[in-house]
Amino acid sequence: MAVPTTREQCAALDAVDPLAPLRKEFTLPVEGIYLDGNSLGVLPVRTPEVVRRTVEQEWGQGLITSWNAAGWTELPHTLGAGIAPLIGAGDGEVLVCDGVSINLFKILTAAMRMRPGRHTVLGERDTFPTDLYIAEGVTGLFEGARSVLLDSLDDLDAHLDEGVAAVVLSHVDYRTGVLLDMAGITERVHRAGALMIWDLCHSAGALPIDLTACEVDFAVGCTYKYLNAGPCAPGFLYAATRHHDAVRQPLTGWFGHAEPFAFRPEYQAAQGITRFMTSFPPLLALAGLRATLEIWEQVDLDQVRAKSLALTELFMARLADLEIVTPREPERRGSQVAIRYPDGFPVVQALIERGVIGDFRAPDLMRFGFTPLYTSYTDAWDAAEALREVLASGEWRAERFHRRGAVT
Amino acid sequence: MAVPTTREQCAALDAVDPLAPLRKEFTLPVEGIYLDGNSLGVLPVRTPEVVRRTVEQEWGQGLITSWNAAGWTELPHTLGAGIAPLIGAGDGEVLVCDGVSINLFKILTAAMRMRPGRHTVLGERDTFPTDLYIAEGVTGLFEGARSVLLDSLDDLDAHLDEGVAAVVLSHVDYRTGVLLDMAGITERVHRAGALMIWDLCHSAGALPIDLTACEVDFAVGCTYKYLNAGPCAPGFLYAATRHHDAVRQPLTGWFGHAEPFAFRPEYQAAQGITRFMTSFPPLLALAGLRATLEIWEQVDLDQVRAKSLALTELFMARLADLEIVTPREPERRGSQVAIRYPDGFPVVQALIERGVIGDFRAPDLMRFGFTPLYTSYTDAWDAAEALREVLASGEWRAERFHRRGAVT
Repeated sequence: MAVPTTREQCAALDAVDPLAPLRKEFTLPVEGIYLDGNSLGVLPVRTPEVVRRTVEQEWGQGLITSWNAAGWTELPHTLGAGIAPLIGAGDGEVLVCDGVSINLFKILTAAMRMRPGRHTVLGERDTFPTDLYIAEGVTGLFEGARSVLLDSLDDLDAHLDEGVAAVVLSHVDYRTGVLLDMAGITERVHRAGALMIWDLCHSAGALPIDLTACEVDFAVGCTYKYLNAGPCAPGFLYAATRHHDAVRQPLTGWFGHAEPFAFRPEYQAAQGITRFMTSFPPLLALAGLRATLEIWEQVDLDQVRAKSLALTELFMARLADLEIVTPREPERRGSQVAIRYPDGFPVVQALIERGVIGDFRAPDLMRFGFTPLYTSYTDAWDAAEALREVLASGEWRAERFHRRGAVT
Repeated sequence: MAVPTTREQCAALDAVDPLAPLRKEFTLPVEGIYLDGNSLGVLPVRTPEVVRRTVEQEWGQGLITSWNAAGWTELPHTLGAGIAPLIGAGDGEVLVCDGVSINLFKILTAAMRMRPGRHTVLGERDTFPTDLYIAEGVTGLFEGARSVLLDSLDDLDAHLDEGVAAVVLSHVDYRTGVLLDMAGITERVHRAGALMIWDLCHSAGALPIDLTACEVDFAVGCTYKYLNAGPCAPGFLYAATRHHDAVRQPLTGWFGHAEPFAFRPEYQAAQGITRFMTSFPPLLALAGLRATLEIWEQVDLDQVRAKSLALTELFMARLADLEIVTPREPERRGSQVAIRYPDGFPVVQALIERGVIGDFRAPDLMRFGFTPLYTSYTDAWDAAEALREVLASGEWRAERFHRRGAVT
């Protein structure tokens, strides 16, 4: 498919876009173009009603009977089952609970225990920092253990020795949008006898993932970016069935107990993925995930991927004179475009004033996320034009754009 | 105050109850009497609107700008400040995040590190099990450490030797409703050089607490029982200011970093209580806490305590021929009444059919929680009468009441 060179061509693509009907499922900002769905996904139209029902009926009227009558008890598993097809997981391999950091803590501690005698956790220096901080937190609990950060993945094989217990990598880099070769890297890590843990925050819902085919050991991900479950909604974790029996994780809350309602003083881990449970996620927050997964049931991820690549390709083509750090090769690109620009912060603020919402990641990257369920080709075109105009006019030099503010 | 001996006397007490006006703040079940607010508090009338605003305006329209514009960023601290007066905490000593189990994990790990050379965590065998399981999870991470469970608090002093790092106790027992002497026990624990951690799940919002006066080191609590923040809403933790600098906890997520938005690869703990943050709590769940704390601002906890004691005294007086395990002495009683009855499970189910909602805790306790903000004297009277009738009629023997069901 040729990259559009006019806005009319974009409109023509929108007219035949198989995902276009889904746009009406989302509440978009009244004005402007939202290119920050990779930070916080927009509100699905059906969500307020699902949340209202959860609050007024399930909590307000059902009270404790809703544990069974409204299916609360099963939600970490049933919602996990709703996420499973998006990431290529099998039955009973996905659990919704806690957040990315805590889920990674559980998995990484279990992984260290599954590889006694190995003391290194390998990560990449540019990974989203919370993963690195958690690796530091976990290795700090094991005598002699340490977290080693690679400056570049080119150094991976050189570091993959018999001391490595686990490798933690982001499937798509939060800043550059670089997509890693999940199958190839997982295989190299396995060859060294280590466990592979993928962070799917920037790929779940953005592109097809096949954890089973890639023989991934563990994964974590969030639901509030491409999946649109709501701000800071509970995360998910994946654990391959073959590892379930070996998992011993230390956040041994009562919902991970084999018989939580027997109220016994000694802990006994539940079977299967349930042993990763600690406490129960907030029901109001789960309501957001319940609502959005009704939409995801209807989505063909191959269509999402095709459109995502077309949108990012279009955006990059229109801004080819800038320093784009996102790879041009489709197989190395997630669903966002990052542009290096030392004055990126005020430029992004000026763009926001024009209604184009992207974000800035220190020290020098402007970041634009493309969410094919609700971003159109004309959106991508218009956003690129707006950025060209902001840069050409120099309007970003105005003092008001230089004040630090939004957590984006 | 004499215990009422007629329903008319109860109605008279309701007529002059200073807390009675607050009952209209809560959505009660259409029919019946809810005595399970110690499991899941009822829905405040104002909550649906606060949640709707959070969903539709802050998320739906504000999107990422709500981090600042709607004050999201500060919520773990501002909501913590709203809880502080309920538990006698000072400025910057309460943080809202995660749940009880995870917060206890953070605190207990920090406590172990604050008492190097001490290897025991003391608990009570009858404490709510998740606290015991977490103590097991934490001690499993420290070479030579162990969790020791006392059969009775009478054994506390005998076990308080120089090997004890920390003691974890429930302020009010979840089954029996026994209220412990926070000041006296904390002092004894301190005399042994150990740290004292209180679980406030069954006392926060049920009675006045003064963590500062009792010189408590750390505490955890939930917000979904007496505080009415919604099912499985985020918990809170308390850390005395004198300990903040010494805290090193291993759930080192990015929101606990000194500069989370600098995205540095190395972890550096934030100052103050912020270093207990891991990830950010779900905003939809925090909305429930925002709403209910508006009510708690108006509440006089001394009035709550006086009414709570009167309600439980009334209920026990009407059922004096049963085996009540809750202490009759006010200073040893929380805000619930537990009755030992081997067939308690079907009896509670039969009561629920009559519209009186209590719960059952294995192996043999019927549990009735009294929440003075929305439970009246006539409610307590009617509930006791209903229980007398269920027992006198033997209706609980019907087969339908013996099926296991609700998670209560």
